[in-house]
Amino acid sequence: MQAYFDKCMEKLGFIPNVLKAYAFDMKKLEAFVAMYNDLMLGPSGLSKLEREMIAVAVSSQNRCYYCLVAHGSAVRQLSGDPALGELMVMNYRAARLSKRQRAMLDFAVKLTNEPWAVEDHDRDSLRRAGFSDRDIWDIAAIAGFYNMSNRVATATDMRPNSVYHGMAR
Amino acid sequence: MQAYFDKCMEKLGFIPNVLKAYAFDMKKLEAFVAMYNDLMLGPSGLSKLEREMIAVAVSSQNRCYYCLVAHGSAVRQLSGDPALGELMVMNYRAARLSKRQRAMLDFAVKLTNEPWAVEDHDRDSLRRAGFSDRDIWDIAAIAGFYNMSNRVATATDMRPNSVYHGMAR
Amino acid sequence: MQAYFDKCMEKLGFIPNVLKAYAFDMKKLEAFVAMYNDLMLGPSGLSKLEREMIAVAVSSQNRCYYCLVAHGSAVRQLSGDPALGELMVMNYRAARLSKRQRAMLDFAVKLTNEPWAVEDHDRDSLRRAGFSDRDIWDIAAIAGFYNMSNRVATATDMRPNSVYHGMAR
Amino acid sequence: MQAYFDKCMEKLGFIPNVLKAYAFDMKKLEAFVAMYNDLMLGPSGLSKLEREMIAVAVSSQNRCYYCLVAHGSAVRQLSGDPALGELMVMNYRAARLSKRQRAMLDFAVKLTNEPWAVEDHDRDSLRRAGFSDRDIWDIAAIAGFYNMSNRVATATDMRPNSVYHGMAR
Amino acid sequence: MQAYFDKCMEKLGFIPNVLKAYAFDMKKLEAFVAMYNDLMLGPSGLSKLEREMIAVAVSSQNRCYYCLVAHGSAVRQLSGDPALGELMVMNYRAARLSKRQRAMLDFAVKLTNEPWAVEDHDRDSLRRAGFSDRDIWDIAAIAGFYNMSNRVATATDMRPNSVYHGMAR
Amino acid sequence: MQAYFDKCMEKLGFIPNVLKAYAFDMKKLEAFVAMYNDLMLGPSGLSKLEREMIAVAVSSQNRCYYCLVAHGSAVRQLSGDPALGELMVMNYRAARLSKRQRAMLDFAVKLTNEPWAVEDHDRDSLRRAGFSDRDIWDIAAIAGFYNMSNRVATATDMRPNSVYHGMAR
Repeated sequence: MQAYFDKCMEKLGFIPNVLKAYAFDMKKLEAFVAMYNDLMLGPSGLSKLEREMIAVAVSSQNRCYYCLVAHGSAVRQLSGDPALGELMVMNYRAARLSKRQRAMLDFAVKLTNEPWAVEDHDRDSLRRAGFSDRDIWDIAAIAGFYNMSNRVATATDMRPNSVYHGMAR
Repeated sequence: MQAYFDKCMEKLGFIPNVLKAYAFDMKKLEAFVAMYNDLMLGPSGLSKLEREMIAVAVSSQNRCYYCLVAHGSAVRQLSGDPALGELMVMNYRAARLSKRQRAMLDFAVKLTNEPWAVEDHDRDSLRRAGFSDRDIWDIAAIAGFYNMSNRVATATDMRPNSVYHGMAR
Repeated sequence: MQAYFDKCMEKLGFIPNVLKAYAFDMKKLEAFVAMYNDLMLGPSGLSKLEREMIAVAVSSQNRCYYCLVAHGSAVRQLSGDPALGELMVMNYRAARLSKRQRAMLDFAVKLTNEPWAVEDHDRDSLRRAGFSDRDIWDIAAIAGFYNMSNRVATATDMRPNSVYHGMAR
Repeated sequence: MQAYFDKCMEKLGFIPNVLKAYAFDMKKLEAFVAMYNDLMLGPSGLSKLEREMIAVAVSSQNRCYYCLVAHGSAVRQLSGDPALGELMVMNYRAARLSKRQRAMLDFAVKLTNEPWAVEDHDRDSLRRAGFSDRDIWDIAAIAGFYNMSNRVATATDMRPNSVYHGMAR
Repeated sequence: MQAYFDKCMEKLGFIPNVLKAYAFDMKKLEAFVAMYNDLMLGPSGLSKLEREMIAVAVSSQNRCYYCLVAHGSAVRQLSGDPALGELMVMNYRAARLSKRQRAMLDFAVKLTNEPWAVEDHDRDSLRRAGFSDRDIWDIAAIAGFYNMSNRVATATDMRPNSVYHGMAR
Repeated sequence: MQAYFDKCMEKLGFIPNVLKAYAFDMKKLEAFVAMYNDLMLGPSGLSKLEREMIAVAVSSQNRCYYCLVAHGSAVRQLSGDPALGELMVMNYRAARLSKRQRAMLDFAVKLTNEPWAVEDHDRDSLRRAGFSDRDIWDIAAIAGFYNMSNRVATATDMRPNSVYHGMAR
């Protein structure tokens, strides 16, 4: 994992506090990093920006300070649009989005707020917006992942690296 | 992973459908299994039964059919008490629990339903019930994990193996 | 009422705890039994299984341990389908139901969760699914009855007979 | 039942529409009237006014137009205090109540809004306010009864007799 | 402001308690009265009755005792229909309204309960019901105003003049 | 009002879009500005920063994009602490606040989310944190004001000046 931390330092200039938090146990850190890297950086029909938009819209529902700061920053960077990052944090419904991205976030947010009510017609809305079944899996898996991370971060009072606040403003 | 599936067959007599669902991509399956095995079977201050109780109480809030069937069965088996499995599915507040287990489930359920409101005094309640900071991590990580799995299962309409229904009744 | 209790013993092999709870006052027991027998066993356009499905779907919203155990058992017995009983307890939306039964449960659950919002278009949905005005009365009366019973049972910490747990699994 | 309707005419000067609604089936009318009369007029540690206060506070949560009009009128009449009737309709928390009556309504309203969360400490609050276990049964049974009636009335679009509006203002 | 209070006495026969509450600071009273007079009495495409209907429907969601008593009375007076005042207090959905008025109240109530979810299609519903963009502003501004007033009144335990209770019954 | 707009230009370098939105009618603009200036800039026991903190914490509950951007910027400027602005937007509970400021925001947020439940004990919490009755009025009036503004802004799809995004980062 030292190699991974080194790569973080090299690529980001700092080590995200979430990784330090998990590092008390290598097994936990490796499992978390493996899942994160696959979901957020691996091959997918969703762009990296779209995946970060899901991350922030979900974290906004759960009001997770850590994830909103860290991934809000990522949306600003990947989109080059500071306002888009703020919109995902504050209320994704106020953003001017393509039908595709709106459908994607509506699904992720419903899955966050009332998972029991997600049914075939919700999956059909995604299909009508052009998503494949594999894409639906990815939307669900990313929304699910932040529903997990939001809770681990809040439950353990994780604090974001202060460097995020000023990035890509 | 064939070895892992073989071990499932040998140990359980069947392969849980969640694993088949993830198996379309080895990276996703491996990350999921690594995290699951560490959280539910690895070393922890929480007993395996306690971890399954969290799984079911969380899944009850999210009304996840797959997880309630699969992990409700696990609570019945590990406790030898069919009514306890039903209580976790239906309303954990109706169960006659030790103060420790009640505090554990209160935390996991609050973290599920209003994660934004979890604060120091909630962590203090766990400490007063005898949990260490490492235990708090484990409760949060398990509650988080099922908040993820519940959503992936519901979003993709995962169905539990029918064999679970009759087990340990 | 002794005759009634004797009939319970003969037919069920035990006396449901709810009846023992009401038996401290004959007037209360008689009124409860009269209403129960009329609604659940009397003439109606709804089958007995459909009435029990409403009972369980409503009790699931209110998370009433007593009613979920007792009437979940009734759904398993009347349908011969253990999974159907579990689905009503856990999340009726995950069940593969006919349009008729889905409309029936959607109405009963909306009436349970947001009674103030039930209006003509909700009644029209039932009519389109083939229900008569008399059927609508019965659905409403049964949903109403369990919204009452759930609260009496929870408020008085009523516990189900343990025999229910193993029935029709 | 004609005798009962005649008594209504004699005592009230009109027949409440809820009775006409149930009168399509004598069995249903008789069961409803038997339960109503026992709960609202029979022997109890709660005064008739207190029982009507529960009826209105519960109906306010469920926003049942029929029950709020009919029982709001009853609170005005029994108390001789028009403002008390309005307070029960609008927000019972704004009323200047005795500790006893406040505890009674807090229990009834919690049982209405989150029945799954009612536990021993809620019953203890009633006991500390001077209620016996029999009184707790009555509070629960009355709160339960209006959780039923509210839903039957709303589901069938029942309309209150217009005479109620001007009574005891 | 004395002139304004005198006009109140002359026109209403009493000084509404909300004005007395604000009168501890002339700047606050003047700003409140200026906004109130413009919104409720100034030129608008909404009738005065319609504006009061919004006031009461909004106050019902927030359960504000002061505003429900004072503006419920205004609806009764302006409409000459005591039942309409009660319907706005209890559940506006139970009233037999024109499509225009129903659309107006649906918008005001959604804006009250889930402001984050109000979007173009909600404005379009108002336009389809015949409202201009200026009318939409007025509906929003009045709904907004009572979302403010309800909270000031409740936060400071404001009590309505008792004279309101008997008016226009 | 031209003088006021000129002062905005001189002091801020731009005219906030909310003022342009209200400017279609001088009466509405004047009433809004009078109330705003009194509440946010007039004499009060609350500092200007504290008033802006209330503005943002309330707007976060209502997810108002306009107000979060504009007043989030004000918190960053007045406090000189970019992270504090983000905390108010994202989850005020995650901020390390004095007891005084935490009590102030707890009251404002409860008044926003469940105004019907605000009672004497909530006012007492403010008094124990050192607030006078006049301060309580100000907290309530400011929380009320943003509950109004949030709704007017969202209902009319108001967009914040883009200059806010980069300020005081």
